[in-house]
Amino acid sequence: MHALLIISHGSRRAQSNDEVVQLCQLVSEHVEGDFDLVRAAFLELASPSIPEGIKRCVDDGAECVTIVPYFLAAGRHVAEDIPSIVNAARVEFPETMLSIAPHLGAFEGMARMLAEVARAQGGGRD
Amino acid sequence: MHALLIISHGSRRAQSNDEVVQLCQLVSEHVEGDFDLVRAAFLELASPSIPEGIKRCVDDGAECVTIVPYFLAAGRHVAEDIPSIVNAARVEFPETMLSIAPHLGAFEGMARMLAEVARAQGGGRD
Repeated sequence: MHALLIISHGSRRAQSNDEVVQLCQLVSEHVEGDFDLVRAAFLELASPSIPEGIKRCVDDGAECVTIVPYFLAAGRHVAEDIPSIVNAARVEFPETMLSIAPHLGAFEGMARMLAEVARAQGGGRD
Repeated sequence: MHALLIISHGSRRAQSNDEVVQLCQLVSEHVEGDFDLVRAAFLELASPSIPEGIKRCVDDGAECVTIVPYFLAAGRHVAEDIPSIVNAARVEFPETMLSIAPHLGAFEGMARMLAEVARAQGGGRD
């Protein structure tokens, strides 16, 4: 059983956190057949935390958890904080395979997606 | 002449800002024929600022500037700061059409892209 855990920073604004949870529900429609469940977790300021999110996936039966950092910049959070938390979880759940995808901003499809956003707003000739 | 201006928050880490500039160069390859030039600007901590970025587009001959906020969350920056700065620029450049696209996190393609990131990392059955 394979889980997808999408990690965002977390905000004091509940609405921002809710948006991420809703986004994860949308993602689950796109990964049917590839991932059995999709969850959100937050680095700080919101719950579930990353360790809690991983634990919930394991409790639900996940043998593999793919972690996607929903971050645009490769700052300290992406380079240090998330790997450190995931490494601690590897010790706690030695039988679960935890893998961290590149953060969203590094994804090769990002330029294409920004182009789509721009065109949708009204690029293109009259 | 139509310009695309991609606005990110800006970081104290020069590398993060450089990544955005490089991303804009990649975006320009995807919007050829739709936009004549693609530039980056930063809300804070880096240059060019948003007003500077708009001015450079206008100086280069842009009659329309499409502004894409490279932000994931609809926080104060997206909801208030960027519109306020762009409104001031509308007064300064009354003959230039400035339009703000929804921020990246609101784009309908985001769920699909996160699914792609997850699959690229190793979703899928053995």
